[in-house]
Amino acid sequence: MNDEQWMERCLVLAERAWGRTSPNPLVGAVIVKEGVAVGEGFHPKAGEPHAEVFALRAAGDEARGATLYVNLEPCNHRGRTPPCTEAILAGGIRRVVVGMIDPNPLVAGSGIERLRSAGLEVTVGVLAERCQKFNEVFSHWITTGRPFGVLKYAMTLDGKTATRTGHSFWVSGEAARARVHRLRALYDATIVGGNTVRLDDPQLTVRLAEGRDPLRVVLSRSLQLPVSARLWQEQDKAPTLVFTTAEADPTVRAQLERLGVEVEAMPELTPAAVLAVLARRRCTSVLWECGGTLAWSALRDGSVQKVMSFVAPALIGGAAAFTPVAGAGFEKMHEAIRLERLIAEPVGADWLLSGYLPSGD
Amino acid sequence: MNDEQWMERCLVLAERAWGRTSPNPLVGAVIVKEGVAVGEGFHPKAGEPHAEVFALRAAGDEARGATLYVNLEPCNHRGRTPPCTEAILAGGIRRVVVGMIDPNPLVAGSGIERLRSAGLEVTVGVLAERCQKFNEVFSHWITTGRPFGVLKYAMTLDGKTATRTGHSFWVSGEAARARVHRLRALYDATIVGGNTVRLDDPQLTVRLAEGRDPLRVVLSRSLQLPVSARLWQEQDKAPTLVFTTAEADPTVRAQLERLGVEVEAMPELTPAAVLAVLARRRCTSVLWECGGTLAWSALRDGSVQKVMSFVAPALIGGAAAFTPVAGAGFEKMHEAIRLERLIAEPVGADWLLSGYLPSGD
Repeated sequence: MNDEQWMERCLVLAERAWGRTSPNPLVGAVIVKEGVAVGEGFHPKAGEPHAEVFALRAAGDEARGATLYVNLEPCNHRGRTPPCTEAILAGGIRRVVVGMIDPNPLVAGSGIERLRSAGLEVTVGVLAERCQKFNEVFSHWITTGRPFGVLKYAMTLDGKTATRTGHSFWVSGEAARARVHRLRALYDATIVGGNTVRLDDPQLTVRLAEGRDPLRVVLSRSLQLPVSARLWQEQDKAPTLVFTTAEADPTVRAQLERLGVEVEAMPELTPAAVLAVLARRRCTSVLWECGGTLAWSALRDGSVQKVMSFVAPALIGGAAAFTPVAGAGFEKMHEAIRLERLIAEPVGADWLLSGYLPSGD
Repeated sequence: MNDEQWMERCLVLAERAWGRTSPNPLVGAVIVKEGVAVGEGFHPKAGEPHAEVFALRAAGDEARGATLYVNLEPCNHRGRTPPCTEAILAGGIRRVVVGMIDPNPLVAGSGIERLRSAGLEVTVGVLAERCQKFNEVFSHWITTGRPFGVLKYAMTLDGKTATRTGHSFWVSGEAARARVHRLRALYDATIVGGNTVRLDDPQLTVRLAEGRDPLRVVLSRSLQLPVSARLWQEQDKAPTLVFTTAEADPTVRAQLERLGVEVEAMPELTPAAVLAVLARRRCTSVLWECGGTLAWSALRDGSVQKVMSFVAPALIGGAAAFTPVAGAGFEKMHEAIRLERLIAEPVGADWLLSGYLPSGD
């Protein structure tokens, strides 16, 4: 196996902790001696040891003179655990292969420097692009202090998220829906507006995939929400947090609170203001599963970094059908938000198109 | 080179006549002896000899004992040219490799039968799927007597064909626009409605690709069309045909006719009725480059067999922005028109998603 293949193995190991490491990154490590893996590990969750430490423990004395592969630069600072660089040196590793430099300003190359100055051979940037994408949530969070926002929607090939009557079961197929559930298991929170609660009555939990439920977040100015909605159920398993304003209906508020739902009135109810509150709760990523009106607001105030559009092989027509991004919209094409690195991948019979907003947004 | 590679070569040769063979198929042929191509040919246009004849002429005596590759079954009937099967037998070919059976009811396997009964070895179905797709226009036309209809549009990733003000320059990039021009060079006619003439003032000619212009067709009930529109220009090079009704404004009609535009009043102005007229003119294929209202009608009355959606990496928002398929639309998702074989391919920075309506529609 070559460097790329061992790095691939690191990503496979890292993925075992999918959705459990927040606010930390997904990291896997392999120690290889004479072409054989002698130790493997991954970071299981925040507060527990890093991937390198598990791999070193597994390798024991075999680590002497071996190569360590890890998808993220080893840390060189004392956080909740001691620096990995020291453990690597103590373990007698001779060469370290790193997928990407840690964007954490507390690391940012200093781990690699420490290893090099101690005489180790360090290779950086193996499968760099994949490693970066794999930890895009962490990179955004650690450099900006704001949650990484993904706008996700399912539309027909003629660009509709629901028929003119608001009917949307189902636009996309089972495989695409399972993929969304897997995203929910990774993202710290999922957000909808009041319209989605009223029209779709979603659960927003993880059922078609393995993993923990995200924090369920609702934005509703008036709080005109059905008390029977499924979002208020299972509060012990998956809490729901409703952001509202001073205009909120006090009766509904009291009813929701009795059901165990947390309600927070905001001076100004905007996507960015909501993300600021979520950031203070260490929420590193949010999935915008909302309708077109809220999607437009979130895009406009910089609360979206990535768009994931599931496109179904279906046409429903309708000048008055629902559209994934509504609101006022731009007047001229040259004002459009241009996405970067748009890629398409098949998901069942659907296609998933994903792209990034220009960074700086 | 193996059979697939020689068949690939047939398609490359056939493509040289792109847009010039209607109502005939695109056909290329290669004669191979001891691993070397000794003759090649393609069908240049209707009324001229078939691909096999050109290849046999080029090969001369070298054809004896050789293998003939051709993407469509050789004909066995006397049309405007003598049957190719007789030429193949006379040339001394020993083996024939065919991409697909000719769907023409006058051939439909009889060419292959004739060759086999004369003792030749015949292999059928090499690169079959690609060969079928390559001549999908011909297959539809020859079996139904109706033009093959493609609904083509360019939309943003949020499903808009124009902003709320109707502005659409440009949704897709240069590569996608060149691809559309190449489609126009193949399709016999391109169709828009009056709204597209008024909003976009398109030319609908072939400028970003090589090839002949399609017949330009406009559907307009009222004939409230600007006399200055670019569609009425270049009538010597690219004729325009306007379908209207008895309600048509007689002044505009007279003005258009003075400009050399043909105007035909229909008892009932529907996509299917227009296609019936076009079929009588031996128009084998049409490109629906229309807006959402006409697209909905064309889809509903069976005038569309394939959808090509260019998706641009852009978001423009707008509840009132333009949508590729408008009209009334369906009420429930399960009523949706389900497309088959939806594939995605990158075209510049855009993605082209194409799929087929269920056959029978």
